[in-house]
Amino acid sequence: MSAPTLPPGAVLAPAPANGTPKGARTARVAVLGASGYAGQEFVRLSLTHPGVTLTALVSREFAGRSAAGLLPGLDARAVKLPDPIAPEALAALWAAGGFDTLVSALPHGALAELLAEQPALASAELRVLDLSQDHRAGEAGYVYGLPEAFRAQLAGATHVANPGCYPTAAALALLPAAEAGWLAGPVTISALSGISGAGRAPALRTSFVELDGGAAIYRAGESHAHVPEMARTLARLTGAAPEVAFVPQMAPMARGIVLTASVALAEPVAPDDAHALYEQRYAGEWFVRVLAPGEWPETRAVRASNRCDVAVTTVHGGRTLIATAALDNLVKGAAGQAMQNLNLMLGWPESWGLPVHGNPW
Amino acid sequence: MSAPTLPPGAVLAPAPANGTPKGARTARVAVLGASGYAGQEFVRLSLTHPGVTLTALVSREFAGRSAAGLLPGLDARAVKLPDPIAPEALAALWAAGGFDTLVSALPHGALAELLAEQPALASAELRVLDLSQDHRAGEAGYVYGLPEAFRAQLAGATHVANPGCYPTAAALALLPAAEAGWLAGPVTISALSGISGAGRAPALRTSFVELDGGAAIYRAGESHAHVPEMARTLARLTGAAPEVAFVPQMAPMARGIVLTASVALAEPVAPDDAHALYEQRYAGEWFVRVLAPGEWPETRAVRASNRCDVAVTTVHGGRTLIATAALDNLVKGAAGQAMQNLNLMLGWPESWGLPVHGNPW
Amino acid sequence: MSAPTLPPGAVLAPAPANGTPKGARTARVAVLGASGYAGQEFVRLSLTHPGVTLTALVSREFAGRSAAGLLPGLDARAVKLPDPIAPEALAALWAAGGFDTLVSALPHGALAELLAEQPALASAELRVLDLSQDHRAGEAGYVYGLPEAFRAQLAGATHVANPGCYPTAAALALLPAAEAGWLAGPVTISALSGISGAGRAPALRTSFVELDGGAAIYRAGESHAHVPEMARTLARLTGAAPEVAFVPQMAPMARGIVLTASVALAEPVAPDDAHALYEQRYAGEWFVRVLAPGEWPETRAVRASNRCDVAVTTVHGGRTLIATAALDNLVKGAAGQAMQNLNLMLGWPESWGLPVHGNPW
Amino acid sequence: MSAPTLPPGAVLAPAPANGTPKGARTARVAVLGASGYAGQEFVRLSLTHPGVTLTALVSREFAGRSAAGLLPGLDARAVKLPDPIAPEALAALWAAGGFDTLVSALPHGALAELLAEQPALASAELRVLDLSQDHRAGEAGYVYGLPEAFRAQLAGATHVANPGCYPTAAALALLPAAEAGWLAGPVTISALSGISGAGRAPALRTSFVELDGGAAIYRAGESHAHVPEMARTLARLTGAAPEVAFVPQMAPMARGIVLTASVALAEPVAPDDAHALYEQRYAGEWFVRVLAPGEWPETRAVRASNRCDVAVTTVHGGRTLIATAALDNLVKGAAGQAMQNLNLMLGWPESWGLPVHGNPW
Repeated sequence: MSAPTLPPGAVLAPAPANGTPKGARTARVAVLGASGYAGQEFVRLSLTHPGVTLTALVSREFAGRSAAGLLPGLDARAVKLPDPIAPEALAALWAAGGFDTLVSALPHGALAELLAEQPALASAELRVLDLSQDHRAGEAGYVYGLPEAFRAQLAGATHVANPGCYPTAAALALLPAAEAGWLAGPVTISALSGISGAGRAPALRTSFVELDGGAAIYRAGESHAHVPEMARTLARLTGAAPEVAFVPQMAPMARGIVLTASVALAEPVAPDDAHALYEQRYAGEWFVRVLAPGEWPETRAVRASNRCDVAVTTVHGGRTLIATAALDNLVKGAAGQAMQNLNLMLGWPESWGLPVHGNPW
Repeated sequence: MSAPTLPPGAVLAPAPANGTPKGARTARVAVLGASGYAGQEFVRLSLTHPGVTLTALVSREFAGRSAAGLLPGLDARAVKLPDPIAPEALAALWAAGGFDTLVSALPHGALAELLAEQPALASAELRVLDLSQDHRAGEAGYVYGLPEAFRAQLAGATHVANPGCYPTAAALALLPAAEAGWLAGPVTISALSGISGAGRAPALRTSFVELDGGAAIYRAGESHAHVPEMARTLARLTGAAPEVAFVPQMAPMARGIVLTASVALAEPVAPDDAHALYEQRYAGEWFVRVLAPGEWPETRAVRASNRCDVAVTTVHGGRTLIATAALDNLVKGAAGQAMQNLNLMLGWPESWGLPVHGNPW
Repeated sequence: MSAPTLPPGAVLAPAPANGTPKGARTARVAVLGASGYAGQEFVRLSLTHPGVTLTALVSREFAGRSAAGLLPGLDARAVKLPDPIAPEALAALWAAGGFDTLVSALPHGALAELLAEQPALASAELRVLDLSQDHRAGEAGYVYGLPEAFRAQLAGATHVANPGCYPTAAALALLPAAEAGWLAGPVTISALSGISGAGRAPALRTSFVELDGGAAIYRAGESHAHVPEMARTLARLTGAAPEVAFVPQMAPMARGIVLTASVALAEPVAPDDAHALYEQRYAGEWFVRVLAPGEWPETRAVRASNRCDVAVTTVHGGRTLIATAALDNLVKGAAGQAMQNLNLMLGWPESWGLPVHGNPW
Repeated sequence: MSAPTLPPGAVLAPAPANGTPKGARTARVAVLGASGYAGQEFVRLSLTHPGVTLTALVSREFAGRSAAGLLPGLDARAVKLPDPIAPEALAALWAAGGFDTLVSALPHGALAELLAEQPALASAELRVLDLSQDHRAGEAGYVYGLPEAFRAQLAGATHVANPGCYPTAAALALLPAAEAGWLAGPVTISALSGISGAGRAPALRTSFVELDGGAAIYRAGESHAHVPEMARTLARLTGAAPEVAFVPQMAPMARGIVLTASVALAEPVAPDDAHALYEQRYAGEWFVRVLAPGEWPETRAVRASNRCDVAVTTVHGGRTLIATAALDNLVKGAAGQAMQNLNLMLGWPESWGLPVHGNPW
């Protein structure tokens, strides 16, 4: 592993500090969809975040039951969580000042339904972080929450659309080359994901017996819902509108994404020059690590962390870029990035509450 | 799943028949490296093959011990296997007429060493199937054992080099397009493999704890040992010399490969036309199945079978081919293909002893 | 591994022979619940059975669709299966002479419902093999289908209740000691099972993410549905009514059961004497293998086979028996044992269509 | 899950606090065997412990290389670890005042060898925590580090033998009943463990392909090295010398132990009374949680935490106790318990640096 040190000007705080910051604002957060994998992960991260107070866990399934059942592994003796409430109770809680931030880990489309049913929640005063794909094209003034690309717009934003797991990996794999104007052709991306990426609703296709011991390609080509999001981000980085094809695959593991992007280069580039560009671009990023030449991303190294590992080379005589990335789809690909965005929205150190080390087993 | 029926002219026999063929020759086979994963698999397949008699299991580790320990799961009450012998004993056995066919599942380089030490084995009379990469470039007159491409040369051949697991998947994914002259640019291949592909010798990198629950890219670019073999096969199919880049990945499963190849096309091709080409080309192939449009390969479907599932589409306005394949690296990627080659060498029905159905769990 | 040879008088046929037996009757079988894990496995075993013809696959979910979707991995080009039909169509098919044997892999209670709705099926002419627990106490004249204990009653039987997976392992672990009158106290059984034992209906508790990487005890004590069945079989073997406690566990694997039973002995027994009793009792059994002292059962060795591996010792100064067993819950614990029973019902060699070797990976 | 609250008198600190304690002593720790699974885990836990400073990582394999390779997943940009040194360098470092505490995660026997070679380390001044089984019988004045049983002796101790993983689970499963004098017969224990329990040295028996998808019993009876340790602890708790039989099993997962103990009771006990005894005994224990009746331990709930979940019932008319436990073999079964012991040795809050919540996936 390369061991780049953060440059002198890096503004990020170190990993979660011991000691609550004096005078820090506190976010009073309601989590929608708290029993799903991303929702649970956000709750877990919140437990060690110095500025986040969970004031509502919203789950239709667990409403009226104890929070203990909602988060497997949590020891209810050691943490006091609010009892889960039904989505219908949210507007009243808002009116009563029960929360100031809404983190929605609902399936696509469900937040809009909720807001339609409870219009009081559509308040400009309410800070909203939406993990679904509903606002990722900038609908309703939402900022696209990829800090490494759009940090300035996120500082102080009140409505943020959290990127998808695959699009985060794709964007971080290609960002330096895209910004540098190197890309000169359509992009082909293949990736493999752990099963938690398919959500927690029971289905035959996510049953243990159907998946253990095997891997599968699914929805390959240009039909996966994440393709437009990938293309949109690349368009913003390059100023052009690249074509994107995508071959997603399911691997028999709970978490993690490994992604490979290949694209023709405008001019031949030596592998070392590609590496140097990436090192330079990501030098100040706490949550992106560029691997040394000859090292390649693996999901284990970033498991349960908010870090994305990136490695790059060129092939075909330098005319094709191979850019790779690994991240934890539930952390940097979902709940962790949401927390990173929340830190930016509130002016907190970007790393608060977020592990940078991976826990490989 | 599509259900293509074999065309009227298909010459292949049905899957393993009940009933030993009258008057068939019998191959008396010595298996070198019988305790490795590919060697074991060849022994298992031999148990139901109507023409193969195992006369020697060669394993330095198990020599002098019982065959029972060599093949986990085998019930020694139900099958009579010869006791394992040391490699040093092979020449004497050959001199005594103990075998007529040598199937070598030794690591790369080891067969050459053995032949150097026991020159009597370098006989033109001895039928040899080498599963290592030593003879895959045609060294010493070996025929490259990819039946779907080079069937005519395999009929009656005495020395055959069995293809690698990744190269078999790559070749079958690209063969129809390559033969049709469609390929017009460098090829980028990504694939993921189960762990048995790394062999059976104990190593930290193949230990359970190091692998369970994660996936990793390794040796990406142009450095993997299989890259020249992939390029060589494509060169024979196209008449040109394509550049190949390769991104291999390890997934936490014992068996199986899923592979994706992307390459620029000479002329834009509609997805349905690509599919039609593949269906037509593979119509008579017992061990290649072309999936219906919208279906994609998975390792479970071909687990423990000699079948390779293939699916194809085009993207980027028809200018890029996406060709995918799944196979079992120990069967169609190793021992099964060796058996298929042996069937061809001896003029037997190509499907003898070889499962075409996968056993998904 | 010990290598006991079958005694001279062993009447069992060798493992699946090449060559269809001359003049053998053919069973024309309808499979109820063909899309579940046990149903699928029975269909797979039928494909190589010389006497079984599948004439109906009954599945509410797959009725009207092709058989290809019902059996993942099957290559529809290579096998002709009847198209799935709905349960409602069964009586008409019976009236038309469409089948003579009904193998029911429906959930508990469902076969009775079906028979109530279609009374014509309740014919004494119809051979029935019920894999559910509905008839395991001998209801409606059903014979309990544990061949190793009740072979004589199974020969020629028309209605057979197939034992449960855990009860089969428990019975085979304890049978020799129970028959010998050695047991002198309550029995405590712990076992771990692969996830296919929980059936194929999607549920959160059988989802991949909820299970991968962990193990759990469930329904421990005396409440598991299999406890009465275990006690009943022991009662038949001993003439007494032993108390049974059971601690089942789920392990993150698709198939397999490993079971440990402990029970006080009437008189102290040396480990070697316990082993000798088991060897002697099981000497003629094709599908039970007694492991050598110091070897212990593992699910890998019996994976996809109909064999049960058994090992035994005594502890606590010879006063406690430790009896262990491993089997594949879908084969010897379900579909394979059903086939074994069908072989007995029809007077065929007991081993027809049934693998005795395990396929460990 | 039951939600027992700690009783008013509970003296333990809450889970890892924010804020380094004022004036706390700091332990300067050398970790022996830092590249093994337990050693790595201790290093990881140390990173968030407010009183531990790692001053030496000792690893023959990694000496002279960077610490980054030693701990997969660690981001070297975010943490400064000392470069690994060879064991031979330890005495000189001790002489130079480089550490005051030695945590040894070496294999059994290796610490004694080291001390024989470097006698200066055998100093009464040096605090030693030995994770091997070498000192668990109290050799050389070592205290047995099971805090829930022997807390008083651990406060201020300088030499502590950390219990084995299985023996910790067995002791915590039986402790309340043993102390209460309920046990009246030999004990039979079955357990299943994740693969990390077998250590990190590469071996065929811990290779991925050999283990994935299967489970196995091994060394059953009275021969496992942990049997005497289990018996010894029970003897100390009961004053008698119980016989112990043990059936260990390997399950295909990286971490976790689930254990079941059964033993005859002196007098019949109702299940609720057994539960009540356990609840009462463990009420003040931060790292033991008694599950509600009807709930049973699972490894997922305690994954990566230092907590042990315990559940108990009685069967056979109340005459047999069934006591179960789950823990993470690398945390409460090794490195976490070592940290808990270190906290006690130094008078720190027992929970410092130790997660109580499990991370299930």
